Amino acid sequence: MSRRAARHLLGIHGLDRADVEALLARAAEHKRALAGGQRAGALSGKVVATVFFEDSTRTRLSFEVAAGALGAQVLSWSMKSSSVSKGETLLDTVRNIDAMGPCAIVMRHSSTGAPHLVSRHVRAAVINAGDGTNEHPSQALLDALTLREHLGALEGKRIVLAGDVLHSRVARSNAWCLGLLGARVVFCGPPTLLPPAAEALGAEVSHDFDRALEGADAVMMLRIQLERMAESLFPSVREYARLYGMSPRRAQRLRDGVPILHPGPLNRGVEISNEVADGAKSVILEQVMNGVAVRMAILEACA
Amino acid sequence: MSRRAARHLLGIHGLDRADVEALLARAAEHKRALAGGQRAGALSGKVVATVFFEDSTRTRLSFEVAAGALGAQVLSWSMKSSSVSKGETLLDTVRNIDAMGPCAIVMRHSSTGAPHLVSRHVRAAVINAGDGTNEHPSQALLDALTLREHLGALEGKRIVLAGDVLHSRVARSNAWCLGLLGARVVFCGPPTLLPPAAEALGAEVSHDFDRALEGADAVMMLRIQLERMAESLFPSVREYARLYGMSPRRAQRLRDGVPILHPGPLNRGVEISNEVADGAKSVILEQVMNGVAVRMAILEACA
Amino acid sequence: MSRRAARHLLGIHGLDRADVEALLARAAEHKRALAGGQRAGALSGKVVATVFFEDSTRTRLSFEVAAGALGAQVLSWSMKSSSVSKGETLLDTVRNIDAMGPCAIVMRHSSTGAPHLVSRHVRAAVINAGDGTNEHPSQALLDALTLREHLGALEGKRIVLAGDVLHSRVARSNAWCLGLLGARVVFCGPPTLLPPAAEALGAEVSHDFDRALEGADAVMMLRIQLERMAESLFPSVREYARLYGMSPRRAQRLRDGVPILHPGPLNRGVEISNEVADGAKSVILEQVMNGVAVRMAILEACA
Repeated sequence: MSRRAARHLLGIHGLDRADVEALLARAAEHKRALAGGQRAGALSGKVVATVFFEDSTRTRLSFEVAAGALGAQVLSWSMKSSSVSKGETLLDTVRNIDAMGPCAIVMRHSSTGAPHLVSRHVRAAVINAGDGTNEHPSQALLDALTLREHLGALEGKRIVLAGDVLHSRVARSNAWCLGLLGARVVFCGPPTLLPPAAEALGAEVSHDFDRALEGADAVMMLRIQLERMAESLFPSVREYARLYGMSPRRAQRLRDGVPILHPGPLNRGVEISNEVADGAKSVILEQVMNGVAVRMAILEACA
Repeated sequence: MSRRAARHLLGIHGLDRADVEALLARAAEHKRALAGGQRAGALSGKVVATVFFEDSTRTRLSFEVAAGALGAQVLSWSMKSSSVSKGETLLDTVRNIDAMGPCAIVMRHSSTGAPHLVSRHVRAAVINAGDGTNEHPSQALLDALTLREHLGALEGKRIVLAGDVLHSRVARSNAWCLGLLGARVVFCGPPTLLPPAAEALGAEVSHDFDRALEGADAVMMLRIQLERMAESLFPSVREYARLYGMSPRRAQRLRDGVPILHPGPLNRGVEISNEVADGAKSVILEQVMNGVAVRMAILEACA
Repeated sequence: MSRRAARHLLGIHGLDRADVEALLARAAEHKRALAGGQRAGALSGKVVATVFFEDSTRTRLSFEVAAGALGAQVLSWSMKSSSVSKGETLLDTVRNIDAMGPCAIVMRHSSTGAPHLVSRHVRAAVINAGDGTNEHPSQALLDALTLREHLGALEGKRIVLAGDVLHSRVARSNAWCLGLLGARVVFCGPPTLLPPAAEALGAEVSHDFDRALEGADAVMMLRIQLERMAESLFPSVREYARLYGMSPRRAQRLRDGVPILHPGPLNRGVEISNEVADGAKSVILEQVMNGVAVRMAILEACA
């Protein structure tokens, strides 16, 4: 792959369009093979380590299914079962795991840049599974695959990302990725939850959700972290849901075929209503399903 | 299989005798193959997810060994390493795991009926590994296999289940299963720990342990949950052990060849004495060993 | 193997030199095979259980990579996901896991002698992955492999073990192992942290670190457990680091080719400085890498 650092996948930022296209094309092949009951053996005899300093359900399990489907042994490490409580540094922990010989280290950390730091000190390929408020590249790629399946080429398509964009690594990675694929990205949320430099990410900004939804080709709802409320970044759950929640009324006004995405986990009744989450326009479980195929492509390309 | 819902195993209730016989016969075959060092490949290339909302040692590990012995990849999820702390609903958690493509979801939950609910929303086969005080079907099947090995056909055999029957999913599943196989089930314990409608489960009731043991063909001791004492359901550990514990004296009065079972984990010195647990009549570790073979048969039939 | 108990590996104490030589030779073969991308299938179709009553990162993961590289299924149990909170005894927990049929149980426990007790009650081979302050045999073997790679034959070589020798199972296993291989072992630390009967372990004793380092062929730094300070076994971290820490000045005065080892996890700035840990004489990550090959040899010999 062209501009991207040797073997690591640290973010969408730094990839070029050809990198993303290649990963999406390979993911689509894996998806077809999985549907046909086939598993690839590309990583047979190799080890993939998942190293999660933050909890996760879907991302960790999805990478583990993907690694297994490629024939790799999965080595699962999490903060809770660790020596970190004994005061070991991040780098020492990861370099130790690296010394055991995995071909790839899939890592999540609450600090922006942690995987970048690690990547300079290990032999394994480092795959960023979420770092602070920075990036979550595999999520953006699975979102792109899902959008492609519904919209075809994304050139010129208007994609609304709604909610707490400021703190969302999903939003950042999606903004880079959708930008590379030629889509028009709109960030929508209360001023306190939008990044000051949205333009640097190539995005338009809106504070009026109903207006933003007019002419939208797809809508991606972001998770509200309820603990932000303590910081007074938004007034109340009820107020937030009224202004920026995806209600049945809002979903109905979208054209047919406009998919509604959410990276999960859902706050039902806050940023998305039950009816919409389980309704015809929701593609939330397709996103999860596509996650396995996308992560197979990522692991295969890195390892 | 006849009456049982397509592919799920939600409980013994709902199975018919032919279902149970088929699973036991297949389990016996797996047991012989395992003893000969053979492993089957029936689930090769597939994924089995264990999803435990309650802690477990033997049940989770036993299903994982069984899945591995069938060639499946094991995906292990537990409450403690999860997004549930982020407020995700039970259904969302399990549907996400389901979207990753496992052929079976083995699940334990503290609420009665949780696996039944889940089974209506997923593509995977759902295997109930314990739901509240309702059922624990794989335990009943491994108990039946163990009893068969010691007693031959169970038709007309008198099996005493002793202890906290009221709160025991093991007792409920066993009552259904032993009933299907033609055994006579006796529930024995203090009135506060027996279910009001024992007859609906096809069981006789006794409050006198010594009398219940006369003529018993097998005895299954149930685990006392010591936290029940706080609810004043029984007076004291000492009193309980005296009235309903399996003491060496009681064990000795059983005929030779009468097996003593316990689903574990043991409260040594409470419902069962050390001497009996480690004595000649105890078949507790045989139960655990049979668990792997039974769970192989279950996974194979469901997946 | 000659003197060593049938199949278990409970400690270095009880092995003879031929046992250790055979394990090191086989480990070296596995290391070469791993470097060539080969994995052995010696445990294909078998199960290796890791049973950790104490937390661990590197030891548990290293055994799991080793088991996987031999083709075994890994069954991972730890205190935190267990029934032990329900009051089950150590023996009951391990006998249950044993009944599921693993060929080996790799176990860590805070009590000296726990694996020895267990080994008398199970069919699986028991591998001690650390018991209290007693032994950690796989660590000593990987240290010996690492030392051999740097020093050749250890006959007559002077190896300094520095720090909290009294509480260190790593030091005890190394003293036995290095003794078998003909090395001269020096324990160095404050009097409160050295064992009263160092001679029984075949070791010389020193309280002066700088003097002990003169003529050293290798130095093994031990982890200080900071909680010992509360017991007044040493005055302060600063004082300790000054008297017994491996500083850049001390490392520089060692001859070229004198390796510095540490079993991890590191207290950087306490028993070892950052510069030394990451410097040219440090072989800490080689130790970790050798751990996988050594544990493959152990599992293969036991299982």
